[in-house]
Amino acid sequence: MAEKQKIYKPKAISGFPEWLPEERIAEQRWFDHIRKTFESYGFCSIETPSVEEIDVLLAKGEVDKEIYVLERLHKDEESDKESRLALHFDQTVPFARYTAQHFNDLVFPFKRYQMQRVWRGERPQMGRMREFYQCDIDVINVDNLPLSFDAEIASMIYETLEGLNIGRVQLRISNRKILLGLIESMGVTDPVPVTRAVDKLEKIGEEEVQNILIEEGLNADQASQVLALSKIKGGADDIRAIKAENDKMQDGIDELAFVLDNLAHLPTQAAIADLTIVRGLDYYTGTVYETQLLDIPEYEGSVCSGGRYDDLAGQYINKHLPGVGISIGFSRLFDVIRQTHPDKLGIGPKSPAHLLLYTEDKDKAALATKTAQTLRGRGFNVEVYHTVKKWDKHFKYAKSKMIPTICYPEDEQTAKFKDMATGEETIQNISDWNQS
Amino acid sequence: MAEKQKIYKPKAISGFPEWLPEERIAEQRWFDHIRKTFESYGFCSIETPSVEEIDVLLAKGEVDKEIYVLERLHKDEESDKESRLALHFDQTVPFARYTAQHFNDLVFPFKRYQMQRVWRGERPQMGRMREFYQCDIDVINVDNLPLSFDAEIASMIYETLEGLNIGRVQLRISNRKILLGLIESMGVTDPVPVTRAVDKLEKIGEEEVQNILIEEGLNADQASQVLALSKIKGGADDIRAIKAENDKMQDGIDELAFVLDNLAHLPTQAAIADLTIVRGLDYYTGTVYETQLLDIPEYEGSVCSGGRYDDLAGQYINKHLPGVGISIGFSRLFDVIRQTHPDKLGIGPKSPAHLLLYTEDKDKAALATKTAQTLRGRGFNVEVYHTVKKWDKHFKYAKSKMIPTICYPEDEQTAKFKDMATGEETIQNISDWNQS
Repeated sequence: MAEKQKIYKPKAISGFPEWLPEERIAEQRWFDHIRKTFESYGFCSIETPSVEEIDVLLAKGEVDKEIYVLERLHKDEESDKESRLALHFDQTVPFARYTAQHFNDLVFPFKRYQMQRVWRGERPQMGRMREFYQCDIDVINVDNLPLSFDAEIASMIYETLEGLNIGRVQLRISNRKILLGLIESMGVTDPVPVTRAVDKLEKIGEEEVQNILIEEGLNADQASQVLALSKIKGGADDIRAIKAENDKMQDGIDELAFVLDNLAHLPTQAAIADLTIVRGLDYYTGTVYETQLLDIPEYEGSVCSGGRYDDLAGQYINKHLPGVGISIGFSRLFDVIRQTHPDKLGIGPKSPAHLLLYTEDKDKAALATKTAQTLRGRGFNVEVYHTVKKWDKHFKYAKSKMIPTICYPEDEQTAKFKDMATGEETIQNISDWNQS
Repeated sequence: MAEKQKIYKPKAISGFPEWLPEERIAEQRWFDHIRKTFESYGFCSIETPSVEEIDVLLAKGEVDKEIYVLERLHKDEESDKESRLALHFDQTVPFARYTAQHFNDLVFPFKRYQMQRVWRGERPQMGRMREFYQCDIDVINVDNLPLSFDAEIASMIYETLEGLNIGRVQLRISNRKILLGLIESMGVTDPVPVTRAVDKLEKIGEEEVQNILIEEGLNADQASQVLALSKIKGGADDIRAIKAENDKMQDGIDELAFVLDNLAHLPTQAAIADLTIVRGLDYYTGTVYETQLLDIPEYEGSVCSGGRYDDLAGQYINKHLPGVGISIGFSRLFDVIRQTHPDKLGIGPKSPAHLLLYTEDKDKAALATKTAQTLRGRGFNVEVYHTVKKWDKHFKYAKSKMIPTICYPEDEQTAKFKDMATGEETIQNISDWNQS
């Protein structure tokens, strides 16, 4: 039995953001746009459960992400017999597991998008999000996947981000084979320290990178050569001008030039080659992408990253599944724009209603219902104001929710429409009314 | 460091459903319809985090739902200082907490819908879902909320379920004040055992209920009177014909008749009074709803339930917030239809694409991109088939994904369109083409 009720004053949980209705409306607009763009390229949606078995999450070895494990509050003997479940920390591992599990029911090339929450058990004091949305797209195929997809994915992402109206978007593309080929040609066996050093070029500067490369065993000439290569930025011709030291390097050059050629339909500077891009993960084997928002300096780093990989799901299935994909860190991007450029979100209305329907006369309830239904049938969102109080109360309500029009039904055919912006009132046929 | 890779064959996790792409497309269609209907009544979306502090979840006292608590896999000293977090088991508690926390930023009446996953740590062998979507709508106001909303919520739910094309929908509505008033008039102090017995009427039958009522201290006449009342079904006039024993009972009669009167625009039998409906929860204080799918006998029980409550968030804020709301158990409904009436879901296409664009000629890649962009700009979803292989391969691909049309671009203006259903091929202007 509950004791006499105490008030438990709730507060925000650090790392688990939530939005007010007017912010949520803006967030929905973003999601709708992203989904529409993804589907316009024929990508289908999938959703996986929020959890995976811990063994699935750790199948590739320890992960560096903090994982949230689930425990039943009231454990019993049965609980101990079950597999341990944990919230997924990204959408790649669940996608790989999904593909392996449903392999025989899928048609390849399999093009999917996924827009779900992921969880990371970060320390709250680091100010990072512990629950956030990611929007991922990937194409995978059995045995081989045409390079044209590497360009298509870039094109989709450009169109997606460009349509959010957050200023200029720049995709920076490289191909790991170029740098890896050069490193191989120098007789270096472990390329990882070299690629890591290049990855830091923008952050720590040339001199520091040169020092690291020499520490890692390169001679001064070699280090300079790596640096010179990494600094290359430009178009397909700039890439073709690179002198290849071996076949791998030539492959990388050809592939990157091909991808850029296939992005010729995008505006100038929308997609450029940038050989500093290597991505930390060894997972990627060819094309790699990062994305910069040139007009949002407050967003540090890449808003959307990904690349080409040799094999998606080798830990779950004995099939060779190469693919290419990219991921938008949705919630962080939305939150940065929300905090620094709220004007770009069009935040305002606290209701999806196009119309507030009001009648002073209690006997007109049936008329109000009928008018509302007619207008809904015509595609308008109609809120009926049921509280009959002082005359101006519904007016204040429409204003505070930013509902653009008030409708006062007169009879089954006609109503008075008041435009809240101009104050203008007109009597119109209900079946003629259109939002101004 | 990862050891040599072992294959970990993944399997479904009991209670955590996931769908194939073609099922997911059907699920999205349902979600879109539900959202559209909710918004057409001016309800706004909110989302809360997946977790709440355990103290928030338990603020009303122990809950009978099984709760999943989160634990960080790599706990540290900091972990112990944090509040314990748990996945929410419904959307009512988070909605109450949200309303209290953001009270000053909300405009009342606050009309919100919420379509999120909830989690229940059920034993897996019970075959219940442990992760599922709920679609909730509620209206709340400060101090008092007009009864018209009780009818509006019923109307919305009818329209929502009716639009899913799963046969006849019947809302069964009652008002708890009627039965509670009668019980009070009999001098019974604790009404709970009586309402519980009535709640079981359809399941255990009249005789058994009569026995329970007598065990609970009613005399035979009183038990018969309770039974006779509970068996009343019908329209507003049948309710008005009930003889009230006290003011409470009369209030219930008037309210229920009012709600039914305000649902006169619905088809006959779409909304009926049914006094067996009492809902288990004492939370509800007036109107209560259940919903039956008359053509889906495989769905046992009510697909959508709710009612009127006196106070939403008394445990979190010192404001009186009466409301009315209802909840669709989305995933269970979808799964029952999927398993028993898959035809009603229109499952088929494995891609959202309207068109598969194909060119045999590698040199036409730029033309393909341009044609695809033109068609996308016209609102069509276009998948480009990048794999240039044997001629008929792309044809089989379109067939297996059920993409209805193949487009073979000829030049920037024209293309050949092949209708996959009829086999008909026509050369058309790209800017004229419309899906047949």
